[in-house]
Amino acid sequence: MNELNKPHILVCNDDGIEGEGIHVLAASMKKIGRVTVVAPAEPHSGMSHAMTLGVPLRIKEYQRNNRFFGYTVSGTPVDCIKVALSHILDDKPDLLVSGINYGSNTATNTLYSGTVAAALEGAIQGITSLAFSLTTYEHADFAYAGKFARKLAKKVLLQGLPADTILSVNIPNVPESEIAGVLTTSQGRSRWEENAIERNDMYGNPYYWLNGTLKLLDDSLRQDEYAIRRNFVTVTPLSCDLTNHIFLDSLNKWNLQK
Amino acid sequence: MNELNKPHILVCNDDGIEGEGIHVLAASMKKIGRVTVVAPAEPHSGMSHAMTLGVPLRIKEYQRNNRFFGYTVSGTPVDCIKVALSHILDDKPDLLVSGINYGSNTATNTLYSGTVAAALEGAIQGITSLAFSLTTYEHADFAYAGKFARKLAKKVLLQGLPADTILSVNIPNVPESEIAGVLTTSQGRSRWEENAIERNDMYGNPYYWLNGTLKLLDDSLRQDEYAIRRNFVTVTPLSCDLTNHIFLDSLNKWNLQK
Repeated sequence: MNELNKPHILVCNDDGIEGEGIHVLAASMKKIGRVTVVAPAEPHSGMSHAMTLGVPLRIKEYQRNNRFFGYTVSGTPVDCIKVALSHILDDKPDLLVSGINYGSNTATNTLYSGTVAAALEGAIQGITSLAFSLTTYEHADFAYAGKFARKLAKKVLLQGLPADTILSVNIPNVPESEIAGVLTTSQGRSRWEENAIERNDMYGNPYYWLNGTLKLLDDSLRQDEYAIRRNFVTVTPLSCDLTNHIFLDSLNKWNLQK
Repeated sequence: MNELNKPHILVCNDDGIEGEGIHVLAASMKKIGRVTVVAPAEPHSGMSHAMTLGVPLRIKEYQRNNRFFGYTVSGTPVDCIKVALSHILDDKPDLLVSGINYGSNTATNTLYSGTVAAALEGAIQGITSLAFSLTTYEHADFAYAGKFARKLAKKVLLQGLPADTILSVNIPNVPESEIAGVLTTSQGRSRWEENAIERNDMYGNPYYWLNGTLKLLDDSLRQDEYAIRRNFVTVTPLSCDLTNHIFLDSLNKWNLQK
């Protein structure tokens, strides 16, 4: 196939362009499309859908092993998508893939995730978008994740996704032989039980590190976090529309006059 | 009523503790409850659900007109809620109100909003939560907004909200006599058409400011942004669960085997 006839795939992440996951993802996507990498210059975990308003952004070319690999943007994952579409790409991508993130983006953590936010920003801009995360922060083995990402990308390029909807994929960090299967799931219910760590600086003044444990509020294989703890790959469709449409009907009866 | 029997109301925002909107909101809530203010030390517009992982947080007492007004946290709106619940408050609040924000948090902007994120973080923690925004960045008149916020807070304290659901309220910046009414709405569909501004620094290197115009993709009074442009107060129920449950049923048929 002529290079220009291949689908154009934009690759982003929130761990920054030096993260291993984005290299695996870009390499995997190069087998099925023309790839442009645009990623944060620095790690931006936990940045959610934040965008940069108070300082200007810089775009730089980034080399890996003495070859051009992609562009860095001096901002958040969402900044990357905005700048890529307005100033870096010549043509609108057919697909956006974000990741592969270190650490799962399931349950409540979905809301904190820059990886997911980059994909949601793509969906807002009318681009078919996927987010990928691996459930570990260390000893990451991205091999199976890269392969699964490509398989899903091919399927999605054929079938498309509904408007304003992405797929968020979480992959267990185990050898392929130990993967229990693939499940379609909902965002699990959970809550961080906060236990911020208090310390004192050299002047005796306290400071705090956010810390806590994720408490699951459900126990069904239909929920992403519960399923991934049992070694299933989870595929969760997420929407940019946060409206609780079911409750909206009841709220209409509240008689909220001015 | 004994002060301790009054509902405990946590007040937060994303414009920072010096924003006028939070003073109006706190004053309004003091008429119906015991109020604790915990807000970012600095403005954090556009920070969405970002949380601070790489640096520790500081808590400080903040005075206004030589009287204790509340606490500042050296982080994002979501940090404020986490630190408030784990280290500042003695008892769990009955209600969380966030705002009153400068600028509307409607349509796609819902996802970028720190004001909305603070309320969603409250909902995750099981606290009934409301977000309030005024549709302007200048010549703000918060009088009607403060009054409406109190009326809605009283109603919500009586009736409660479904799990994982907040109300996001947007209020036109017009005199009360020009308010067209109150509508329950969905998050409108929209897209920022990016047009980042490119400039050169003194070395001739380019830098970019994010910029653009919000393009509405619908034209119905059932959508927040469309309605507020016609001077309606809009009340939109938002959920922390981003799952597209309708599409999930179709996705089950995609046959995503490992």
